Amino acid sequence: MSTTIEQLDRIVRTAHEAFAAARDVAPRTRANWLEAIATALEGAGDELLALAHEETHLPEGRLRGELARTVFQIRLFADEVLRGEPLDATIDHVDPSWGMGPRPDLRRVNFPLGVVGVFGSSNFPFAFSVMGGDSVSGLAAGCGVVHKIHDAHEKLGQRTAEIVIQALQAAGAPRGLFATVIGRPAGEELVTHRLVRAIGFTGSTQVGRLLLDRAAARPEPIPFYGELASINPVFVTQRAWQARKEEILREYVGSYTLGMGQFCTKPGLLFVPQLDMATSRILQAAVAAVQPAQMLTSALAGGYRKVRDEMRHRPKVEVLVAGDDGDSPAPTLLTTSVAAVLENRDILAEEMFGPASIIVQYDDESQLTQVAATLDGQLTTTVQAEPGEQLTELISELQARSGRVIWNAWPTGVTVTYAQQHGGPYPATTAAGTTSVGTAAVRRFLRPVSYQGFPDEALPLALQENNPWGIMRRVDGEWQHASKVAK
Amino acid sequence: MSTTIEQLDRIVRTAHEAFAAARDVAPRTRANWLEAIATALEGAGDELLALAHEETHLPEGRLRGELARTVFQIRLFADEVLRGEPLDATIDHVDPSWGMGPRPDLRRVNFPLGVVGVFGSSNFPFAFSVMGGDSVSGLAAGCGVVHKIHDAHEKLGQRTAEIVIQALQAAGAPRGLFATVIGRPAGEELVTHRLVRAIGFTGSTQVGRLLLDRAAARPEPIPFYGELASINPVFVTQRAWQARKEEILREYVGSYTLGMGQFCTKPGLLFVPQLDMATSRILQAAVAAVQPAQMLTSALAGGYRKVRDEMRHRPKVEVLVAGDDGDSPAPTLLTTSVAAVLENRDILAEEMFGPASIIVQYDDESQLTQVAATLDGQLTTTVQAEPGEQLTELISELQARSGRVIWNAWPTGVTVTYAQQHGGPYPATTAAGTTSVGTAAVRRFLRPVSYQGFPDEALPLALQENNPWGIMRRVDGEWQHASKVAK
Repeated sequence: MSTTIEQLDRIVRTAHEAFAAARDVAPRTRANWLEAIATALEGAGDELLALAHEETHLPEGRLRGELARTVFQIRLFADEVLRGEPLDATIDHVDPSWGMGPRPDLRRVNFPLGVVGVFGSSNFPFAFSVMGGDSVSGLAAGCGVVHKIHDAHEKLGQRTAEIVIQALQAAGAPRGLFATVIGRPAGEELVTHRLVRAIGFTGSTQVGRLLLDRAAARPEPIPFYGELASINPVFVTQRAWQARKEEILREYVGSYTLGMGQFCTKPGLLFVPQLDMATSRILQAAVAAVQPAQMLTSALAGGYRKVRDEMRHRPKVEVLVAGDDGDSPAPTLLTTSVAAVLENRDILAEEMFGPASIIVQYDDESQLTQVAATLDGQLTTTVQAEPGEQLTELISELQARSGRVIWNAWPTGVTVTYAQQHGGPYPATTAAGTTSVGTAAVRRFLRPVSYQGFPDEALPLALQENNPWGIMRRVDGEWQHASKVAK
Repeated sequence: MSTTIEQLDRIVRTAHEAFAAARDVAPRTRANWLEAIATALEGAGDELLALAHEETHLPEGRLRGELARTVFQIRLFADEVLRGEPLDATIDHVDPSWGMGPRPDLRRVNFPLGVVGVFGSSNFPFAFSVMGGDSVSGLAAGCGVVHKIHDAHEKLGQRTAEIVIQALQAAGAPRGLFATVIGRPAGEELVTHRLVRAIGFTGSTQVGRLLLDRAAARPEPIPFYGELASINPVFVTQRAWQARKEEILREYVGSYTLGMGQFCTKPGLLFVPQLDMATSRILQAAVAAVQPAQMLTSALAGGYRKVRDEMRHRPKVEVLVAGDDGDSPAPTLLTTSVAAVLENRDILAEEMFGPASIIVQYDDESQLTQVAATLDGQLTTTVQAEPGEQLTELISELQARSGRVIWNAWPTGVTVTYAQQHGGPYPATTAAGTTSVGTAAVRRFLRPVSYQGFPDEALPLALQENNPWGIMRRVDGEWQHASKVAK
């Protein structure tokens, strides 16, 4: 049942009031709210996993791992809140001899933006959905969060939301701080509502661009953090190919068919030296051994078939493994040459969301750098290389075009940690300076405010002289550990 | 002489090549380039000041202070580069027991975006122009910078650019890393050129929004960091008014007429209790004593006259001091009531760029919070209050609507330091999460990249295990001072 525009308006207003009421709570309080959510989701695991399996057809093991990641992620953000990391507290004392003239007392801290809108993805029913990365980043920042449930798993979404809302309420958070909406009209209105201050989105380039343009056309434009499309090319050096060709191909087939290729980090291109007949046969056998499973939705299966068929009819693209159609298609493997992709950039620019990938055969390793220099923005790029190989130029081109560069591993599988960067230049994302995975994701939903010349007692607690929250701060240019200051 | 589109294309391409060549230089090298620019501008001070005075009509003392600030700012950014602050280096070692499953080695560092376009402002011929805050932030980030010289001071801009370019060349920076263009067609094309990756802009809402929309409509949208309009309201409490009415009014007149009111932080609104006849006369005398000076350009003077005349004919707006017209207009002072601004929001929303301001008289202090809650986004908001006053609600509304909240000082005068936030919600700026003044300004022009599983020698130096640059890094969640690690 779709949320009406009137309902959405009421939901956003309530979330705004809740945000305002919760804006200044202590880190410990906010961390407790997050912890309450994590505990509640953990407790409801079996019920949620059953619903998720029913709606997404994803295997239970995968779903169990995803839920564990989601719960871990919530606790990691709670810990960051406790550490005061999102606050970026910075203090400059009065300095009469400051180089450009006397400096007043000036102190800066981050505040939450307000209400943020979050669009769940189809392919991660937990980690990028109701209480996925964007929602938890928003709550950790101190924002109100209004989440649009993806219609591919509406029952799971609604049940997850009930559990989250109940947990927040029991933990004492203001009513409506987190809420959900359903349906396209409410989703579109979410992007234009005047009290919504930022959007987090994970989905297709087509829908993402539409919503990005809506956000940009508002009387007051808002940031739109969208994760759209990525091909995630993998480059295999001559030496790596010679040393471990079979291992690489086995892992590649495993990575591109994992979860029926329905990952934003699926390797859609593998660059290798010329394939001989024997190697082609190994590959064909590996792909044939993959057990097809049902895709997330029939619509996605139909979209996959269309884009894969277009790809296989492009000039100089050959079929290594044809795969098949339907809701549980056997994987497809295509091949072409470096010369072909340099002539026809469409091969490099079209994401096939599903179990298909392209092997691009090269003659000369220098062609890798040449191709890399023509790539669109990517979430990830990967090299398979041997110890001691100097790949400075190739790595440099990959760094310039992706958010994460991987050495001798596979792009599927994204750890949630401090140094993660899940982003990249357009069209991988609409905001290359930010990440949607890892603790830095919270920065997207914050805004700095400076206080000049304030009496200590009128300052936010994060900025008061005796550091009542015991957080890390930069003081007169020097970072001070919490442990060094009075608690 | 306007830059042609063909010339612009060549300039941007060259800047891109220079950026790529300079991307990986050591902090010491980049800091030296900045230091070379600072020294050269200092050395050419007298020549530049004469040119600036001729074109802007600003008094020499003000220009000398602005140049000193500009040079200081360049050196402060050089110091930040040396400290490694812009890099935000973060390292997560392999952790088999990481809560969501084994963690690979993952290390993140910031890289420059590429070429950034910068639009100089009319009102700060040094600090927001050729080598102003945006340009030096871009260079400190490691970007190539193409600066559009403002036509209000073209000769100064060209001469400044010559000095900067010569200094960079002598210091060994790649040719074309910094360059300038002139004229509207080149400015528009700068926003759409495919190799330009971000824009810094300071100017009018009209032009800023036009360029913002161009940036958003690109095939690959880019961030547009625009500083547009701000009224900078000042709220005087009953107690402050009783304690130091005359001092407040004297300082207010000084602040709003400073530099002929041509500051983005000019206080355009002063909220005070009812004015009696005696106080009005003090005010009128203070305004009459201000010596008018020539405005920056005749076009600005004309624009000022138009918007001021519109304002003074709004319902319930009265004239306290009429001022006059021409290129050196005597200041204007208007007055109205809180009731009038709550009825007619236009009074609160229109910036008069020039020597005019409005005194809004209130009956009851609680009206201040009521008005504050209706304000548009502001660069600054200010309270004038007495020690011990509890203004929690008012401050909370001001915090929600501005980048900097000031206690018992005046908004004109912006120090360049670590905790400065010169920004604020739209229309104050187009990117409230960022600042255009202070060391955090560099973050606008950076993009994080993570390296997963890399051999140490293939990592960027900022991320190598032994910390060859001796910078502060976050390692496995804990911040490590440079001094704690091997150099």
